[in-house]
Amino acid sequence: MKRLELFQRLSRSSPSRIVLVVIDGIGGLPVKGKTELETAFTPNLDKLAEEGICGMLDPVLPGVTPGSGPGHLALFGYDPLEFEVGRGVLSALGVGFPLQPGDIAARINFATVDEEGKVVDRRAGRISTSLNRKLCEKLQERIKIPGVDIFVKTEKEHRAVVIFRGKNLSDKISDTDPQKTGVPPKEPLPLEEEAKDTSRIVKEFLRQTREILGSLKPANFILMRGFASLPHIPTLQEIYKLHPACIAVYPMYKGIAKLVGMRVLETGESMEEEVLTLEENFESFDFFFLHFKQTDSSGEDGDFERKVRIIEEIDSLIPRIRKLNPEVLVVTGDHSTPSSLKSHSWHTVPVALVSPYARVDEVREFKERTCIKGGLGRMEAVNLMGLMMAHALKLEKFGA
Amino acid sequence: MKRLELFQRLSRSSPSRIVLVVIDGIGGLPVKGKTELETAFTPNLDKLAEEGICGMLDPVLPGVTPGSGPGHLALFGYDPLEFEVGRGVLSALGVGFPLQPGDIAARINFATVDEEGKVVDRRAGRISTSLNRKLCEKLQERIKIPGVDIFVKTEKEHRAVVIFRGKNLSDKISDTDPQKTGVPPKEPLPLEEEAKDTSRIVKEFLRQTREILGSLKPANFILMRGFASLPHIPTLQEIYKLHPACIAVYPMYKGIAKLVGMRVLETGESMEEEVLTLEENFESFDFFFLHFKQTDSSGEDGDFERKVRIIEEIDSLIPRIRKLNPEVLVVTGDHSTPSSLKSHSWHTVPVALVSPYARVDEVREFKERTCIKGGLGRMEAVNLMGLMMAHALKLEKFGA
Repeated sequence: MKRLELFQRLSRSSPSRIVLVVIDGIGGLPVKGKTELETAFTPNLDKLAEEGICGMLDPVLPGVTPGSGPGHLALFGYDPLEFEVGRGVLSALGVGFPLQPGDIAARINFATVDEEGKVVDRRAGRISTSLNRKLCEKLQERIKIPGVDIFVKTEKEHRAVVIFRGKNLSDKISDTDPQKTGVPPKEPLPLEEEAKDTSRIVKEFLRQTREILGSLKPANFILMRGFASLPHIPTLQEIYKLHPACIAVYPMYKGIAKLVGMRVLETGESMEEEVLTLEENFESFDFFFLHFKQTDSSGEDGDFERKVRIIEEIDSLIPRIRKLNPEVLVVTGDHSTPSSLKSHSWHTVPVALVSPYARVDEVREFKERTCIKGGLGRMEAVNLMGLMMAHALKLEKFGA
Repeated sequence: MKRLELFQRLSRSSPSRIVLVVIDGIGGLPVKGKTELETAFTPNLDKLAEEGICGMLDPVLPGVTPGSGPGHLALFGYDPLEFEVGRGVLSALGVGFPLQPGDIAARINFATVDEEGKVVDRRAGRISTSLNRKLCEKLQERIKIPGVDIFVKTEKEHRAVVIFRGKNLSDKISDTDPQKTGVPPKEPLPLEEEAKDTSRIVKEFLRQTREILGSLKPANFILMRGFASLPHIPTLQEIYKLHPACIAVYPMYKGIAKLVGMRVLETGESMEEEVLTLEENFESFDFFFLHFKQTDSSGEDGDFERKVRIIEEIDSLIPRIRKLNPEVLVVTGDHSTPSSLKSHSWHTVPVALVSPYARVDEVREFKERTCIKGGLGRMEAVNLMGLMMAHALKLEKFGA
C-alpha cells in the first residue's frame, strides 16, 4: 500500500483546524557565525518552539535543492519524486494563467540568433520586462494556427510562457533550447506517436514567431523548454477529506495550491493582509496554507539584513495566528534560501508543531541549530502532512 | 522517479573535489563505559567534527548488520536492497580476481564428509591457509571441463572461491552447502531453464573434485554457495558525472570500487602510504574513496586496545588530508565493528562532513554519542552521496 492510499483509508473529516505557515526559504547559512533566522529576534516563533515539538525537514531528499513545486508538494504530503509538475505548468501557474486539463504549457526564453540562425545569446541580453510584454502582445495578436488557441504571457525579463489549447495535444515534445550558444535551436520533436500533431503545431508557432520577431534584435527569436500539462494529482479533499484554503500573494503558490484542491482566498499584497484574510476566513475551512514569500526573495537577492527584518516581521504576526487557536499550528519552510548562496539550497528546514497532543520537547528557540535537537528529529518533509492530520485527531487507527 | 534517476538528472561536472574517508568498522560499543572511538585521543577528528556538520548513519536499515558489499554500496549512494553483489562475486573481488561480465563465481568451503558422503565438518577443521593453497592448486591443475575455463583461488583457512568462465553460463544455481552436518551436500540445481548447462558443469566440477580430494582427509570435499555474476551497476560517472578514484589496500574494496566505476590507484600497504597516494593523485580526480581497513580487523579480533591505537594513527593522518583542502571532506565508516562483539554490527556509524557550505553544528567531538546531536541527525547511509554532491555544488535544482 502506498502512503496516499494509507492516508485516504485513515482520514476522517472533523471540525478541528490545521494552519500550515510556510515561510518560503526560511533556512539559511551562518554569516559571521549566525544564520538569518539565528540573527533575527523572534520571541513569538521561539514561544511556538517552546510550546510545541520541533525538528528539521529535508524538503525532498538529503542533498536535493528543490524548486518551489517539489518543495510545496512535499509539504502537502505528495512525494515530489512521484508527483512532478513540469516547468511549463509552473510558469503558467506563476503568471496566474487558468490552466485547464489538456492545455500544454512551455517556458519561453527570448533569445538572439545570428544570420545563420545560430544562438548568440540565450537570454537576448536579459531584455526588460516591459519590452518582453510588448513582444508577447505582438505574438499573441499575430500568431494564428487553425484549431489551436495560443496564449503568450510575460514572466519577467527574457522569460515568458506559452499555452497551447486544443484537442488531443501532447506534452511529450522535446526542448528547442540547445542550452549553449553557437548552434541553432533544436527542433521540437515528438517524443511519442501521439505528439506528432503537437510537434507540427509548435513548429508552425516557431515559424510565425521567427517571421514576427526576425528583425527585432536583440530578441529576434525564442527558445522553448519544459513542455508540460497539468498532472493528475489526487486532491487534499480526496485523500484527507479536508476543506482546504490557500492564502498567498504570488501566483505560482496559488497555482500549486489549486492543483491540490485548495480554495485560493482573495487577499492583499502585504503579510499583514494575508493574516487578516486568515482571521476573516477562519471559520470556513479546516486547513489553511499561509504562504510568506519575502524571506525567499530577500535570500535570493543575497540581502541578509532584509531577510532578518522580514523574519522579525513574520514573528510579530504569529500572536494573531495563535489567537485563532487552531488545533494544529505548524511553522516551517519549503526549503532554505541562504542569502550567502543567493539561491535555494538543499539544507534542512526548521519546523515547529503546536497542538494539545504534541509531545513537547526541550527546544526553546526556533532556529536551525536548536530544532535539530527536537522531538521530530530529522525527516523528509513529505511526512509532515500525516503528522498534522494526526495531531488534529483526523486519522483513524491503522489495523486492528 | 527513482533516486539514481533524480541524481543523474541533477548532477553536473565541476572542478570541486570530494574526499570520502571510510574508517572500516569505526563504530563500537562501550567497554568499561567507553567505546574504542571514545577512548582514543582524536584531536584532529574532533576538529573536523567541530568545523563540520555531524550525524549518525544507519548503514542499511536500523538493525541490519551489513557485510562489506552493502556497507560500501550504500556509502557510494546505491540502495543496498536494490543493488546486491552476490557472495561469489565478493569472494572473487576479495582475492583480487579480475572478474569479467558473464563469469560465474561461487564461494567454496573445504569440508569433511564420511564414507556415506554425509557432511561431518562443514569447515574441515578450519584447515590452514597453506593447505588450502595446495588443495586449490591441485584442483586448478587437474580439473578439466571442455568449453569452460575454471579458476580456483584460496581465500583463507577453509574458504576459497571458484570462477567458471564460458558461454551462456547462469548464476541461478542453488547452494550445495546443506548448512548442517549429518546429511549429504545438496545438488547444484538449476533455478531457471537457462541454468541447466551450468548446473551440469558444476556437477562435473564436483565429481572431479571428489575424485581429486577423496582420500585427503580432513578436506576431502567441498561445499559451494553464493553463485553469482557481476551485477549491472550504473557507474559513478554515469550517475554523478564524477571522475572517481579508490585508494585501498585490500582487494575486496578495490573490487567494489571498480564495480562502481572508480579507478583503483596503486598504493602501498600502510595507511600512511595510502595518504601519500591521495596527495600524489589529488589533482587528477574529483572524487576519492580512501579506505582504512585495520579498525575493522582489530574489532573482528576483539582487540579493543589495538582498535584504539589504529584510530589514533588515522587521526594523526587527518591533517595531511585537510591540507589538500578538498571542497568536501567526509569521514565515516561502512558499519560498526565493536571489539566486544568481534564482528560487524548494526549500530549506527558517526559521520562528519566539512565544506564551506556546511551548516556547521555544535558537535565538537567525533564520537558515537556526540555525533547524534549533530545537524545531520540520524539517516540512512545511502543519503550521504547526495549530500556530498550538494556540498560540492555539483547538483542542479530539482524542479522549477
